[in-house]
Amino acid sequence: MRMRTPKTRKIAHLTREKILAVSGRVFNRRGYHGTTLDDIGDALGVRKAALYYHVKNKEELLFQCHLAAVDIGMEGFRRALAQPGTPDEHLRAALAYYIEEMADQLKGTVVLLEDGALSPDLHARIVERRDEYERTLRQVIADGVAAGIFVACDPKIVAFAVLGAIHWIPKWYQQGGPCSAKEIAETFSAYLVRGLQKRPALEFLSLPPVANERY
Amino acid sequence: MRMRTPKTRKIAHLTREKILAVSGRVFNRRGYHGTTLDDIGDALGVRKAALYYHVKNKEELLFQCHLAAVDIGMEGFRRALAQPGTPDEHLRAALAYYIEEMADQLKGTVVLLEDGALSPDLHARIVERRDEYERTLRQVIADGVAAGIFVACDPKIVAFAVLGAIHWIPKWYQQGGPCSAKEIAETFSAYLVRGLQKRPALEFLSLPPVANERY
Repeated sequence: MRMRTPKTRKIAHLTREKILAVSGRVFNRRGYHGTTLDDIGDALGVRKAALYYHVKNKEELLFQCHLAAVDIGMEGFRRALAQPGTPDEHLRAALAYYIEEMADQLKGTVVLLEDGALSPDLHARIVERRDEYERTLRQVIADGVAAGIFVACDPKIVAFAVLGAIHWIPKWYQQGGPCSAKEIAETFSAYLVRGLQKRPALEFLSLPPVANERY
Repeated sequence: MRMRTPKTRKIAHLTREKILAVSGRVFNRRGYHGTTLDDIGDALGVRKAALYYHVKNKEELLFQCHLAAVDIGMEGFRRALAQPGTPDEHLRAALAYYIEEMADQLKGTVVLLEDGALSPDLHARIVERRDEYERTLRQVIADGVAAGIFVACDPKIVAFAVLGAIHWIPKWYQQGGPCSAKEIAETFSAYLVRGLQKRPALEFLSLPPVANERY
């Protein structure tokens, strides 16, 4: 009857996606070096042995988390750029997709690439994919400037601001909290694109005004 | 003649400020748990014993780094709000001060508050100071909405975007690199305030256009 204990029964539901989502959250909260596979097992409600069925070690988990995040980001651009539209529309759609997918599924929530966490080989592979994402982001910003839709700016610096805003989300976002992933995605993408538009709309988004609320 | 070795001669120049700047950078790169006092000593070019003259332990260093960052942030608001001006002017000045001071001095570059890094007592003290900073930021945004200068928005969500953009800077900024701290401060503060302004200026900042550059 050992197979029937609650811990082992959970293994059936232990998908790769679930493991990455939970690992990303734990890495983010405790840092890579402060996290053990036991911590991740605890967060998933399974024994470490069950984890080894899916991943070789902690490093592979971190690598897969980073990869998942970059994949979501690139998929956002792929979908946005496949549609007709102006650079501001493309940028807004790409960012909204990235943010909602990341916050909603909590996949790839690892924002840090701590030195020494990944072996040089895996580190280089992540950096290469990240560079690809960042180049795409800068290009869309530069396209908007060239099209006269965005104000003149240094796309590299603005891209860092955009990336920082997004990568910080896992530090404060709580699933089931007061803001839905969709709401955050809409607000962030509108705000981040608005900062570049020469003549942004007067309507930020569909949220009620907060004029007299006190903080 | 042992007092004359290069390592010990450096102790004379070992100010508290320098220690915090370098510690923040090392914590940021390696994560708190992945950093030892030896790593920090190496980065400073001193022996661990010299560090103990200034700080009790690694935890105190982390605590002081967080404190320094929040102090800079609050000082930015104090200076900005002491001047006459509209909420957008106040916000821009406060953010520019925070960013330039942080990047320039690399004081308080610790962006993470990893779980379990600080004892509950010190953790609570940092969270309290951070909450104060975040409340001030949200209030200035809400004031701008109330004054009709900013578009209607949820100041909490926008404040998180602003904080993320800023807290991410230490992850990519290199002292002596292609962008100066002042340039970053100007671009970031202009961009982050512009996203909220109902009628932002057509001039983003004084940088040359990048229209045809390829990324």
